[in-house]
Amino acid sequence: MATRAASSASTREKLLRARGAAAKLALLSSAQKNLLLLAIADAIEANAPAILDANREDVSACRLQGAMRDRLLLTEKRIKEMAQGVRDVAALPDPIGEILAQWIRPNGLRIRKVRVPLGVLGIIYESRPNVTVDTAALAWKSGNAVVLRGGREAMCSNRRLAEILTKVPGVPDGAIELLDSSTRDSVEELIRARGLADVIIPRGGAGLISYVIENSTLPVIETGAGNCHIFVDESADFDMADSIVINAKTQRPSVCNAAEKMLVHEQIAAQYIPRIAKKLAQAGVELRGDGKSRALVGEEEMGAASEQDWGEEYLRLCMALRVVAHVDEAIAHINRYSTKHSDAIVTRSEDNARKFLRDVDSAAVYWNASTRFTDGAEFGLGAEMGISTQKLHCRGPFALAELTSSKYEIVGTGQIR
Amino acid sequence: MATRAASSASTREKLLRARGAAAKLALLSSAQKNLLLLAIADAIEANAPAILDANREDVSACRLQGAMRDRLLLTEKRIKEMAQGVRDVAALPDPIGEILAQWIRPNGLRIRKVRVPLGVLGIIYESRPNVTVDTAALAWKSGNAVVLRGGREAMCSNRRLAEILTKVPGVPDGAIELLDSSTRDSVEELIRARGLADVIIPRGGAGLISYVIENSTLPVIETGAGNCHIFVDESADFDMADSIVINAKTQRPSVCNAAEKMLVHEQIAAQYIPRIAKKLAQAGVELRGDGKSRALVGEEEMGAASEQDWGEEYLRLCMALRVVAHVDEAIAHINRYSTKHSDAIVTRSEDNARKFLRDVDSAAVYWNASTRFTDGAEFGLGAEMGISTQKLHCRGPFALAELTSSKYEIVGTGQIR
Repeated sequence: MATRAASSASTREKLLRARGAAAKLALLSSAQKNLLLLAIADAIEANAPAILDANREDVSACRLQGAMRDRLLLTEKRIKEMAQGVRDVAALPDPIGEILAQWIRPNGLRIRKVRVPLGVLGIIYESRPNVTVDTAALAWKSGNAVVLRGGREAMCSNRRLAEILTKVPGVPDGAIELLDSSTRDSVEELIRARGLADVIIPRGGAGLISYVIENSTLPVIETGAGNCHIFVDESADFDMADSIVINAKTQRPSVCNAAEKMLVHEQIAAQYIPRIAKKLAQAGVELRGDGKSRALVGEEEMGAASEQDWGEEYLRLCMALRVVAHVDEAIAHINRYSTKHSDAIVTRSEDNARKFLRDVDSAAVYWNASTRFTDGAEFGLGAEMGISTQKLHCRGPFALAELTSSKYEIVGTGQIR
Repeated sequence: MATRAASSASTREKLLRARGAAAKLALLSSAQKNLLLLAIADAIEANAPAILDANREDVSACRLQGAMRDRLLLTEKRIKEMAQGVRDVAALPDPIGEILAQWIRPNGLRIRKVRVPLGVLGIIYESRPNVTVDTAALAWKSGNAVVLRGGREAMCSNRRLAEILTKVPGVPDGAIELLDSSTRDSVEELIRARGLADVIIPRGGAGLISYVIENSTLPVIETGAGNCHIFVDESADFDMADSIVINAKTQRPSVCNAAEKMLVHEQIAAQYIPRIAKKLAQAGVELRGDGKSRALVGEEEMGAASEQDWGEEYLRLCMALRVVAHVDEAIAHINRYSTKHSDAIVTRSEDNARKFLRDVDSAAVYWNASTRFTDGAEFGLGAEMGISTQKLHCRGPFALAELTSSKYEIVGTGQIR
C-alpha cells in the first residue's frame, strides 16, 4: 500500500510539473523552440557514450531475441539519426499561432480562430528508446509538454535520454517527465489524469492500445493496428499486381501498413492465384485461403483461413487469400474486417477504382500503389507521431499540426446580447 | 436478466441498422440531402397536431415545474421553429467531399485528403425534444446516421418525432434510431459500442457528461460545463463593465456561457465593487465573495465564497467576486478554476488584453464583450451541435464541419517502397 501511494503521488507531481511546463512552452517563439531543438540534437550527439552505456545495461538485461532485441538496441549510427531527427523537426514550420480563420460579425465582434498547443501529451510506448527523443521533439515544437511512460526493458536508456534533454539550458522544468516503468500503476494513473493531461497516445501493440482505450478517461488517439487488404480486380495488370502484393507483404512484414490479406476477382482467380501464390511462397510467405483459393493451388500449398484470420493482423510473413465476385464484394469484405488503416485496389478500371476509393472506409485508400506508403515521411508530412485509425481529431499519419488545438479570440467594443 | 438481454439485443440491432444507414447517407449528393431535409421540415409542420398530442402526454406525466417543464414543452410556435431550423441546415454548405489538401509526391503518387462523414453519432441528451430533430438534421446533412438516447421525460415526444422523420420517403432505414430511454442500460451499451458508433456526444448536465467520460470506450466530444469569468481590469470603462457583467450574468443565467465569477483589479476594487454589487443585487443576483470584496460591501450583502465556489457552475442568479492584484493573477485564477469555456477581460489596456487573450487557456476568450456570445449562431457558424470544452477534435461551438473526419485517397501507377 505504501509503495502504491508513493508511486501515485509521484505520478501526480510529475503531471503537475508538466502542466506548469506546458504553460511556458506554449508561449515560446518559433525561434526559441528551434534553438532549443538544435541544442538538444547537439547534446544527444555529445552524450553518445553515456547513452550507449545506459543502453548496454538495458540490452544485457533483456531476455528477448531477434527483432525485439534489435528494436531496443542503440548504436552510434542510431544516435546520430536520432539527433538528425530532432534537427529535421526544428526545420519544420511551427504550427502554433497560425490563424485558422478570422471574420467580423454584423455586430462588430472580431472573431479569430488561432492554433494553440494541446497542453500535456501522455505517451505510452514500448521498447524503442528513440521514441523518447522523437516525441519530445514533436511535442516541444508544437508547444506541448510530454509525460512519457516507456517500456520497462528500455528503462535505463530512456532515463539517460530524458536526463540529457532536461539538462539542456532553456528546457522548462517538467517539459519531459518519465513515469515509473516498473509498474502498471503509472499507466493507470496517467490515463485517468483528467485536468492534468490533454490527450493519451498509445504507441505499441494491439494489447496496449485496447487496454488504454478501455480504461482511459482522457481523450485518446488510437494508433496503429493494420489489417490491410489488396484487391486485385478483373482488369489488373498482373505484373503491377505482383510487384504491389510482394512489396506490401514482404518488404517489412512487422509494420502496420504491411498487407495481410489479398482479395482476387473471380474472373482472374484461376490465372492469378496460382501465379501469385508461387511468388509469395518463394518469398517465404505462409499462405491461407478460402475454399476457392485453396482449390486453385492445392490444399497442401495453402492452409484454410478461419473466420478469425480475416480480422487478424499477422505482422509476419503470412497472407490470407479470398476470391470475390466483384468490386462491391471486395469493398464489403474490407469494410467488415479491416482495421480501417490502409487498403488498395489494383485495377485498370477507373470506375471501379473511384468506387473503391470512395466506399472503402479506411484512413488511406490506394489505387495502384502499395499500402506501405501510409507513413508521415512518405506522405511528405515530416516526422510522424503515429498513424490514427480513429476518425475523431485526425485520421491516418499525424504529425505536428495534429498535436494542436484551437481557441477563439474575440475582440469587442462592449457588445452584449 | 431476460429484460436486460432483450434490451441489449435491441440496442445492438439498432446500432447495426444505423451502421448500414451511415454507409448509404455517406454517398448521398448534396442535392439529395437537401431535398430530404426540406421534406422533413414539411413533415414536421404537417404533423404538428400529432406531435403536440404526444408532447401533452409527456408534459402531463412530468413532475417537474418551472424551467425544466418549460424545456420539455412544445407549442405550435416551437414546432414551426423546429421545422425552420431544419430548413436552415438545408441551406448551409455541404462539408462532405471537400478536398482539404492535395499534392503530388516526387515518386508520382497523387495524395488527396478528402472530408468524409464520421459515420454513426451517438447522442445522449435530456429533456428538450427539439434536440431530436436538430441533431438528425445536422447529422444527415453531414452524411452521418444518429443513434439517440433521449430523456425518459420526453419519451412520447421523441418517439413521435422519430417516427415522422423515419417515414419521410428517401430516409434510409436506420438513419435515426431511438434507444430505450426507460433504463440506463441503453446508455451503457451505447457508450461501449466499439465498431458500431464513431463518437459519443453527451448534451446535458455535468453529471451526465462526467458519467459518459468516465465510462465510454468510444471517443467523446465533451460539451458544455461553463464556469465563466469576467475580469474587470484597472483601466476598464465602468459603464462598459457594468453592461457586460449584468448581461453575462443575468440575461440567461441557466446556460453554459453565462458568467459565474467576477475578478476585479485591486486598484479599482473600492470604487467598482460596491457599484456593481448594488446593480447585481438589484437584478436579483445572490453575491458571494472573498474577504476583500465582502469588506467593501458589508458582510450582510455578500456571503463568503468557499474554495468550492471558485470551481462551481451556478447556472442561476448567483455570482462570486474576488479581488486580484493584476492581470497575471486574474489569468492564473482563471486557468486554475475555469472549465476552459468562455472568459472575458474588460480593459482599455491593449497590452493586458493581448496577454489575457493569449494566456487564458479557454475555448473562447473575450476582450470587451459578453461571454454570452459563445454560441454557433452568434459566431455565424449556422446551427450548432454543442460547445466543446475539450481540446481534441474541436473546441468551442461546433457544427457541421466538426461532424466530419477525413480520409486519404492515393492514386499511383504501380509505386512500391
